[in-house]
Amino acid sequence: MLDVYHAEPGANSLKVLLGLHEKGVDFRSHYIALNKFEQHEDWFKAINPNGQVPVIVHDGQVINESTVINEYVDAVFDGPKLRPDDEYGRAMMRIWTKFVDEYFCPALSYLAWNRIIKDMVRDLSEEEFEAKLQRIPLKEQQEKWRITAREGYSQKQLDEWLRQVGASVQRLEKALETGPWLLGDQYTLADIACFAMVHPMPMVYTDLVNDEATPRLMDWHRRIMERPATKAAFSMTQSHYREEMVRRQAEMRASGEVAA
Amino acid sequence: MLDVYHAEPGANSLKVLLGLHEKGVDFRSHYIALNKFEQHEDWFKAINPNGQVPVIVHDGQVINESTVINEYVDAVFDGPKLRPDDEYGRAMMRIWTKFVDEYFCPALSYLAWNRIIKDMVRDLSEEEFEAKLQRIPLKEQQEKWRITAREGYSQKQLDEWLRQVGASVQRLEKALETGPWLLGDQYTLADIACFAMVHPMPMVYTDLVNDEATPRLMDWHRRIMERPATKAAFSMTQSHYREEMVRRQAEMRASGEVAA
Repeated sequence: MLDVYHAEPGANSLKVLLGLHEKGVDFRSHYIALNKFEQHEDWFKAINPNGQVPVIVHDGQVINESTVINEYVDAVFDGPKLRPDDEYGRAMMRIWTKFVDEYFCPALSYLAWNRIIKDMVRDLSEEEFEAKLQRIPLKEQQEKWRITAREGYSQKQLDEWLRQVGASVQRLEKALETGPWLLGDQYTLADIACFAMVHPMPMVYTDLVNDEATPRLMDWHRRIMERPATKAAFSMTQSHYREEMVRRQAEMRASGEVAA
Repeated sequence: MLDVYHAEPGANSLKVLLGLHEKGVDFRSHYIALNKFEQHEDWFKAINPNGQVPVIVHDGQVINESTVINEYVDAVFDGPKLRPDDEYGRAMMRIWTKFVDEYFCPALSYLAWNRIIKDMVRDLSEEEFEAKLQRIPLKEQQEKWRITAREGYSQKQLDEWLRQVGASVQRLEKALETGPWLLGDQYTLADIACFAMVHPMPMVYTDLVNDEATPRLMDWHRRIMERPATKAAFSMTQSHYREEMVRRQAEMRASGEVAA
């Protein structure tokens, strides 16, 4: 039995849902509502003490970290292979998944967080907010919430993250010169990890990701969107989240804060 | 043919050298003198455009990133297995190697850097220093050098990194409650990745790592130091580096800056 605890099909939760649907794996979906802070509830922290999604429980064994989960799922389940057979190819795949985890995702995440957290805590009193913070197990996460919600990051820091997002986009565009997928002819966990980050960018980072600036990336994006597994993953979107995202994206474009 | 470009057996270079010696792999060693900025010379950037060590070239194929290299080396060469055979074990191993790459190593690295870079640029004029910076290919690295050498990080930031180092040490101590190695009975890339970070700590972070505060970690440290592969890796230390390290460690202890 495979239980998957995940949020909306976005970012790291999307990464794992894409891998599972590509493989055609049967699993029980457990939706964790981040806007209700369910990931910090005691019952969930009993499964993942870090209080983060996604996490899977396979035959009683808990695995967290989306990148680790995806390699595990590819290795233990039947279905199309999402990793190259040769070890050099696997190394190149891991260079991409590390790049997402250590560079691309953090930059995007801080920029997104800078807006989302304000929405989430807008209606909380100082006391209610502190009570929420106290339930976050990772001290780094507590600090990130506190800074973003109350102080905000400096413009210099926000500019640097935006520069990193732009550099990431250019790296992808360049890599797609030589094949339909990042590693050539095989669709792999490298594409999945990067797409999990890129997927909303043509709507949000319109100056960075568009048909003129990044034609190969846009083509790659459309081809991934058409895959049955991608459609299956996005069909898991909760309606409340869809409405929120539309509103947020409109706000971000209107404020100009995502322009390059 | 396997060519290995590495610095002193410390941190990420040590991680790769330990893996190679455990496997008993034949390789050609190419020593890159970080104190002479050799990693930023054009001939080296032609091999690794990031201008970072370690990097390997195996039958003409270049692989960088120490964690990726170690999985590759374990997969393609004969010798003792450094990864569990079962996929759940591999997932747990990757949780450890990710923790080193994303949490433990960055915290240690910034703290060490804060001191080392000042030594390295002490005798350079502003112009010479800027010329060195311009040869660093990664913009993030340029910024790290500039901040450390000229402005310095805030005490609040340094304190936070020190807290993370302490939390990492406690996580290791706890994990060693259940077996001789981090994953139980098998010595794996998880131990190698963590040891590459921990190895100088009983000398430098004396308040955090000692027989009273962390008895299991100290025992694990001694057992790894006794392994033939560890001795072989440390026998590659360059004498100029050994002298520098002794001086730096004495300075750090004298200044009290590494006390918890």
